Formats: sequence, structure tokens, C-alpha cells
Amino acid sequence: MKPPEIDVLPDTVVKGFRFGATAAGIRKDGRQDLALVVADADCVTAGVLTRNLVRAAPVELMARRLVRQRARALLVNSGCANACTGDAGMQAALDSCAHVASALEIPAEMMLAASTGVIGALLPVDKVRAAVPALVKSLSPTGWDAFARAIMTTDRWPKVAHRLLPDSYGRSSLLCIAKGAGMIHPDMGPPQATMLAFAFTDAVMDGHALSKSLHAAVDTTFNACSVDGDTSTNDCAVLLASGASGHTPSSTAFTSALESAFDELARSMVADGEGAEHLAEIRVQGLDNEADARTVARTIATSLLVKTALFGQDINWGRILGAAGRAGVRFDPAQVNLWVGDVQIVSNGVGVGAEAEKAANAILTQDAYVVTLELGQGSCGFRYLTSDLGHGYVDVNAGYRS
Amino acid sequence: MKPPEIDVLPDTVVKGFRFGATAAGIRKDGRQDLALVVADADCVTAGVLTRNLVRAAPVELMARRLVRQRARALLVNSGCANACTGDAGMQAALDSCAHVASALEIPAEMMLAASTGVIGALLPVDKVRAAVPALVKSLSPTGWDAFARAIMTTDRWPKVAHRLLPDSYGRSSLLCIAKGAGMIHPDMGPPQATMLAFAFTDAVMDGHALSKSLHAAVDTTFNACSVDGDTSTNDCAVLLASGASGHTPSSTAFTSALESAFDELARSMVADGEGAEHLAEIRVQGLDNEADARTVARTIATSLLVKTALFGQDINWGRILGAAGRAGVRFDPAQVNLWVGDVQIVSNGVGVGAEAEKAANAILTQDAYVVTLELGQGSCGFRYLTSDLGHGYVDVNAGYRS
Repeated sequence: MKPPEIDVLPDTVVKGFRFGATAAGIRKDGRQDLALVVADADCVTAGVLTRNLVRAAPVELMARRLVRQRARALLVNSGCANACTGDAGMQAALDSCAHVASALEIPAEMMLAASTGVIGALLPVDKVRAAVPALVKSLSPTGWDAFARAIMTTDRWPKVAHRLLPDSYGRSSLLCIAKGAGMIHPDMGPPQATMLAFAFTDAVMDGHALSKSLHAAVDTTFNACSVDGDTSTNDCAVLLASGASGHTPSSTAFTSALESAFDELARSMVADGEGAEHLAEIRVQGLDNEADARTVARTIATSLLVKTALFGQDINWGRILGAAGRAGVRFDPAQVNLWVGDVQIVSNGVGVGAEAEKAANAILTQDAYVVTLELGQGSCGFRYLTSDLGHGYVDVNAGYRS
Repeated sequence: MKPPEIDVLPDTVVKGFRFGATAAGIRKDGRQDLALVVADADCVTAGVLTRNLVRAAPVELMARRLVRQRARALLVNSGCANACTGDAGMQAALDSCAHVASALEIPAEMMLAASTGVIGALLPVDKVRAAVPALVKSLSPTGWDAFARAIMTTDRWPKVAHRLLPDSYGRSSLLCIAKGAGMIHPDMGPPQATMLAFAFTDAVMDGHALSKSLHAAVDTTFNACSVDGDTSTNDCAVLLASGASGHTPSSTAFTSALESAFDELARSMVADGEGAEHLAEIRVQGLDNEADARTVARTIATSLLVKTALFGQDINWGRILGAAGRAGVRFDPAQVNLWVGDVQIVSNGVGVGAEAEKAANAILTQDAYVVTLELGQGSCGFRYLTSDLGHGYVDVNAGYRS
């Protein structure tokens, strides 16, 4: 897979925010590992957090601070998840925020924090404190690229999406930044991967509308993608609205732009799945409700046998039907149809034949493709993003800490 | 992993049965691929079948025929699952049984069939028919080893367990044979892997007791193990009682022997998991009901991040806690304790330290070990068997059909 192209963005992509990053020495490899975004004034804020019961200290802190729906700055580190670190972990998150807040001369409660890296490692507050001057000095309206790179862990490329929201009343802007390649099976809900997604808009938004848009956009994008089926202790998606454009987009237009940007990031994240060479969109159609379609799509998207077959570029379609059959959703196996791209390989539950499979296998060599399963029971569907799984995934994860 | 040692068995390990196998050419590699067991008279019979909605033709046929709780013979092929093969698949299963029944001069309805191999491939009846004379000729009371080898697919070794049931009234015998290495996450219930398990006893048993023992033994053994999380379309476990010993063991003794033999086979199956180098027993303790403990244990046992860490011989314990936390079961992360073997590595939710982890990693180099998670909420527990997952799994499954 090649990294997706990022459109050339205007100098100030989103008004009212400055971004920065530095190398604090949290990572062993010396790369930039501490990132900061600061708004010129307090922002209307919404967030969704991992539903994993084991939550990192910064996630617990964010759960508390999101309640006020206001935030001014966000500190993110890679190289350490600060999860399963007990009271010391919470103190480290609080202290890190306090050091940055002090340098920015803002109240510490207006700071949010997020971490990603190895679980069980405590955030080294001394390193954070020592890095604060350089971090604050690096802040600039164009610093979003450095920010996006500093939060990467096993990612091969940064993930940035930008949308403009023009209408007859004016124009606002939306900038979304994410990271994630492994432990990717987000399940985020009301204040609760390690995926991290941050969205910044200069639109004028109220807290309720912002929260509603965020939930809707996360549900069909980040919460509908998987690299390895493992939901992280550190996943969060946070949306800050500065209002600096003075423009209020319609709720529909804003949600639609957010969903489109998150979809772009989710695709980039799954395409960048650890060791992944292909991005597969699993479309399940023909059930009588969306929840069942999501369950079947998720079961196929997380099946090891399906994912290794995609790695092998061999449409071993019995594995897809086998996964659908164990999803716990009722359908008639004799009414199942399956396509890879536009090539039908299963008709009414039975294989179409060797020629169709050969044509399907040719599609499986592409960077991205769609697999469509039609179950013939109703009119509802759902799509889920997944990656192939091969030796690269094993290499990354059998030696991650060493 | 080395194959487990099979005890030297007496010439007639179980009275009233003859076993045989031959090469019918269903497999491309010329190995024996067709196996048969025939009882001297009709047997009391019980079975559990996969709960996957997509069931192979022989499984559908078995569902029908198990209703009468009587069977005389069982035909098993490897090299072809005869699943997703529609009406033609069912006809092939029926015809194969009929050819064998005719040669044995028994009613076709007293024959059961089971298949394992690639999904979507139709059982070649002509090859089966041509092989029947050699198959019948091979039958012998000592043919169980050939039977166990002919039903193997990606298995590295055959799986056989034998138990004696002596008491003051006499003695009977139990012989259990299984296969399975991939698509292993059995979920079998009332007439409903691809694991196949067959048990033969010469004890005198009634249908109700036989069925009850089978369900109980499957629930804590085959239904509590996983190689890759994928439940097969072809899983089945069938138990035939010939009564030829004239001895009636107590129900408790029989269930206990069956559970012990199935546990041995489940361990052998998971140790032989595709590409697996280690067998891990995941013990989850300290919840207030067994169902919740099973859910947490299964979630850890099927976590890709956990399984690749085990492959890497690196106790990246945050992944174990992360998997427990996403299982959907309530517990207090601050009360969690974790051991590898007898080395404690997490105490009250926080890592014990680098020295303990080093000691734990030494244990992870062993062929088999126990991981114990204590959640501190109650007195119930469950244990689940799993394997590590590494390059061998990818090699087997990215190129299985080619």
C-alpha cells in the first residue's frame, strides 16, 4: 500500500488553532513524540472514548473533563499508553497537563490529554516537563503536519483529512487528524483504540450539535473498521470548535463533512494496518435491520481465515460464508450471493466456478477492493473496513516491545 | 511442539467396532483420505453438531439421522468439506453412504457421514464408490490408528485418547479420536468444528445418558478451545456405544472419563494449531458466574495481540488486560492480578516490574503453560485453551487451497 495523497492545504487550514510537536525522549528512537494543539480561546468540545473497561489514565481524565464540553488545549504523546499504571499514571497525566497549562498560562482543567504506546509503561513526567518550552515554541497555525507525525506509533504514514464547509452564509473549515495501525477495532461511545482522532473546526457550533455530529460520524467510520479485532484501552476521538470563522454551517452539512473526513481517515488507518497490503470494504446487504448487517460484516472483517486468505490473494469464499454463518444472525444459506468487485463468485449458496474465482483473485491483487455479501432477507445493509493479515502483522506484534 | 505420546493400547481397545481407511484420491497428495468405522451391531448414538448457520451436507444429514439415536457405521473423508455444495452436496453424501451400506449389507439410514477439507468442493462420489472395496477390506479391530490418520488435514499428528472404566461390576472401555488444527473454535450444540471427534465405547449405555455425558464433556473441552476463532461449517462430535463389554459404568464415571479423554484431545488439537509452537491454558478466576468467566477467557484466548505476543515469547501483559476489558464483563481493573505459571506479573492492576516479566518470559518459551487472571469479584472461574499465532499460521492459511 502507498500512503494516500494529502491535498495541499492552505496555510491556515482552520482558524483559531496552533499546532506543535517536539521530541521529549519518551520514544526510544528519538522521533518526535509529544504533540500539542492550543486554541486561541476556549472551544466547544465533544469526545467519545473507548468502551474498554480497562481505560488509560488520560482517558479517565478526559472522561472527567469532557463533561464541561469546553477545552482549550490537547496534549498527546506517543511511545507510552500510560494505561494500567494506577494512581501514579493519573498523577502523571495531571502533572503533564499542569506543566503545559502553566507555560500556556491557561487553567489546567482546560487541558485534555491522550496517550498511545505500550500498555503498562508510566508517562515520564520529567521528560514531558523538560520538553514543554520547545513544545510551546513550536506552536504555529501550520504545525498540523508535525502534530500528525508525532502521534504516530506503528503507522507508516500520517493521517490528515480536511473539509471546507461553504454555504450562502459564509465558510468554515474542518481539519481531522488520526493515528492508528494496530490494536484497531474501535468501540467508542459516550464518555468512555489505540486509535486517536482529533478534529478541529472554526465553525460556530453549540455543544449538543457538536456531540451529536461526532457520535453519528464515529459510528459509521471508526467504529466500523478493524485491523486486528482488539479494542484499545486508549481510543478517543475529540472534536474542538473554535468558532473563529464566525460561520455556522447547517447541522446536516457539518455531520456529513465530519463523516466524510472520518471515513477518509478510517480508510487510511486500515490501509496502514500493521503489515497490511490491502484495504477491503466488506458490504453486507439484504438483512431486515442494520444492526444484524453490522454484526455479520464485523464477523467477516475480523475472521483470521478471511484476512489470511486476502493476504494470500486467494478468494477462499467458503471462509467468508463460514464467518457469516457463525455471526449469530439468521439467514438462509441457500439464498446467499457473493461478489468480489463486480465478479460474482457465489450464487444462491453455491460456488459459480473456477473462472469466476480466477477473475476474483485478480481483483484481490489490488490495493483496495469491495467484497459484497447479499443475504436476500431484507433491505438493510452495513459496510465495515478491514485489512488483510500476513507476515508483517506477526513481525510487528511478536516483537513490539523489544 | 512435539506430538503427545499415545499410550500403547491393547489389541482390542474397544469391543464391537472395526476401523479402516484407504486412499480414495479425494486429496491431491495421495494420502489416505477415506475412513470408516463399523459396529458389529447397531449402537446407541449421540452427537453434537456445529452451531454455524452454514452447515455442510454431511452435517445436515447427521442432524436428521441422529434423531433416532442409533447408528451402525460412520464414513469420514478428508480433503473436501462438502459444504456450500447445495443439493448436489447432499446427494453426494447420501450416495456415498449408500455405496458403503450396500457393501456392508446394512441399511443406509444407519450410516453417518462427516467431511473435512476445503469448503465449496463437492464430494467426488465416483472416487468414494471406487474405494469402497479396499475400504471395507481394511476393516479391523486395530485399525483405529489408520482411521485417525486418514481424517487429518493440516494436523501434524493424529489425536487418540483411550480410557478404561473399571468398577466392582466389571470393565468397559472408551476410545476417542479427533482431528483439527485450523478453523478451530468449536461451538457445538444439540443436533447441530472443522474439528471432528468420534468416541467409541463398549459400555452399555442408554441414549439419554449417552447424550447427557456428551454435552457435558464437549462444553468444557472442545467448546472451550480456540486456534483461530473461526467456527467451522463441519464440526461434529459423535459418540457410539456398542454395549459389547456387557458392563454398565456409573453415569458419573463415564462422563468423567469422556471429559478427561476429550480434554486430552482438545489439548492435542490446540497444541497442533496451525503453526502453533505453544499451548496456553487461560484461567480466568474471581467472577460471580461461570458464564462471565468463560466470556473473559474466550476474549483473551482469541485476541490476536495476545496470541502474537505469546508467539514472540514476550509477556506484553497490557494486551491481556486490554482483551479482558473489552469482553463486556464488569470488573474493577484496580483489583486485577495476573500470573504466568507461578510468576505474578500484575498486582492490583499495575505491573509488578521488569524482573517478574523476565521470569514470565522464560516460562513462555515452554511448550505449554498456564496464564491465570484473577479478577477479585467472586468465586467462579473458567479455563480456555489457546495457541500462539505466528508465521506458520499465515503460511498455512494464505496458501491453503493452492
